[in-house]
Amino acid sequence: MGEKILIIGGTGYIGKFVVEASAKSRHPTFALVRESSLSDPAKAQLIDGFKKSGVTILNGDLNDHASLVKAIKQVDVVISTVGSMQIADQFQIIAAIKEAGNVKRFLPSEFGNDVDRCRAVDPINQNFQVKVQLRRAIEAQGIPYTLIVSNLFSGYSLSNFLQLGATSPPRDKIVIPGDGSVKAVFNDERDIGTYTIIAAVDPRTLNKIVYVKPPQNIYSFNELVASWEKKIGKTLEKIYVLEEQLLKQIQESPMPVNVILSINHSVFVKGDQTYFEIDPKVGVEASELYPDVKYTTVDEYINQFV
Amino acid sequence: MGEKILIIGGTGYIGKFVVEASAKSRHPTFALVRESSLSDPAKAQLIDGFKKSGVTILNGDLNDHASLVKAIKQVDVVISTVGSMQIADQFQIIAAIKEAGNVKRFLPSEFGNDVDRCRAVDPINQNFQVKVQLRRAIEAQGIPYTLIVSNLFSGYSLSNFLQLGATSPPRDKIVIPGDGSVKAVFNDERDIGTYTIIAAVDPRTLNKIVYVKPPQNIYSFNELVASWEKKIGKTLEKIYVLEEQLLKQIQESPMPVNVILSINHSVFVKGDQTYFEIDPKVGVEASELYPDVKYTTVDEYINQFV
Repeated sequence: MGEKILIIGGTGYIGKFVVEASAKSRHPTFALVRESSLSDPAKAQLIDGFKKSGVTILNGDLNDHASLVKAIKQVDVVISTVGSMQIADQFQIIAAIKEAGNVKRFLPSEFGNDVDRCRAVDPINQNFQVKVQLRRAIEAQGIPYTLIVSNLFSGYSLSNFLQLGATSPPRDKIVIPGDGSVKAVFNDERDIGTYTIIAAVDPRTLNKIVYVKPPQNIYSFNELVASWEKKIGKTLEKIYVLEEQLLKQIQESPMPVNVILSINHSVFVKGDQTYFEIDPKVGVEASELYPDVKYTTVDEYINQFV
Repeated sequence: MGEKILIIGGTGYIGKFVVEASAKSRHPTFALVRESSLSDPAKAQLIDGFKKSGVTILNGDLNDHASLVKAIKQVDVVISTVGSMQIADQFQIIAAIKEAGNVKRFLPSEFGNDVDRCRAVDPINQNFQVKVQLRRAIEAQGIPYTLIVSNLFSGYSLSNFLQLGATSPPRDKIVIPGDGSVKAVFNDERDIGTYTIIAAVDPRTLNKIVYVKPPQNIYSFNELVASWEKKIGKTLEKIYVLEEQLLKQIQESPMPVNVILSINHSVFVKGDQTYFEIDPKVGVEASELYPDVKYTTVDEYINQFV
């Protein structure tokens, strides 16, 4: 039997992939679920699927300190996968971990850019700064941690090449944030789940950042489009939105379009996923550390849409 | 001279309309601006426009308590228009208002549904619940308040009939959340700004909810589409996404699509903007209280797209 793993936020977008990966591993897996989730048929179905794959469901809530401490006391590792609306609630997980006193590793809900190294603008910068504060709180409390910097979700970015509202990659024209030359990293959610679970119990990732930045998944927007054009045998009309115009659009767009555009600005204009080298003192690269994991490449991922 | 008004979050999406309305009023207007905003050319341009219309810019930050107290001490009314990523940071405004001790009215960043009466699902429910907690904290601290329940922004909802990624209302087919029969409320951002400033200093709105729910802006999705079809002389193909399917989409979509869909669920399936009558003990309706304000009707708003 491996370490017991608790996932908080397991019914969320990335959470379900982490739960699935944990359930498939040798680790007894627990998911903290709010009572209210059971009245949502889609969540209830997901939770049912968790149970069938052997996951132990614990009732609890981030706002119910006692339930949180009780759940945490039963496990060795706590992985938070809460969504962007709950990032700040994780200070309550930190408090509960301190009280419980038994946790060997905490993975806060990162799953994006390395927020200490971003040059983002609002509104996403607000979100990044709360993640930064969480990192500092974890360090200050001396809680053993691992941070998963998983860069872009493929389901978010490759399923429509970031063309808002589209349900497949474009075949006529494409809007490209920036000049298209900046490199970003696109990772399959299942691989992110797999790397997360392996890293959560690996002594080499203790108090480290795990960058999911496999060499075959680093593309500029222009390279991505060129690869797609080759696959579909067609040249797309390209509309570039340069920085000044993009900042203006961010300013003028309501939520959540401004959130998406500010992510695009951070990733595709500032290059926040790739402008720095991994510092071996603080970080490791997932595909390098775990060469046995056969990750889905960008090329394989977009083949499904041809 | 009227009461002095401070707007926190004035460079945000709804904030700029509130600042504009305040600048046009008899009230000396102040906007709290972070130093970092000046390095964003789009924000810098906006702030320059504020200055030109007579707004006093105060430097400060929600995370800098002293700067917040100093700004608040100079005014009578504090209006927060911070975006969805900063909702929780408003507890720091409450603390600063308590310390300053001089504030006659506080308007937290609401500008949406009446969160105490919503039956929303995650992820937007998380956001709603933080707003609920803020309401309770304001009441518990005995801070005089007004809550602006402004329902849907027209720029968010009517500019593309909520067709994600579209930049104008659809002319061929339309995806409708729910069965299209549930009523919602669509308001022009400029009117929301105007009502906010008038209500902020009105003794009749003290410790009340101001619902912006003018009779001509209440439409079901089906009524909205019928009105649009009449204007363009064309019948659209309608694709209805019923509740079970919508909940499934919410579950499976990454941020921020899941946020949008969960707003749609609250507004167009649960009917959270219209299922209850305004309780005169706690609420007033803006167009009724201020009949002299000539608000933009839905009909007028969508004429611009014909």
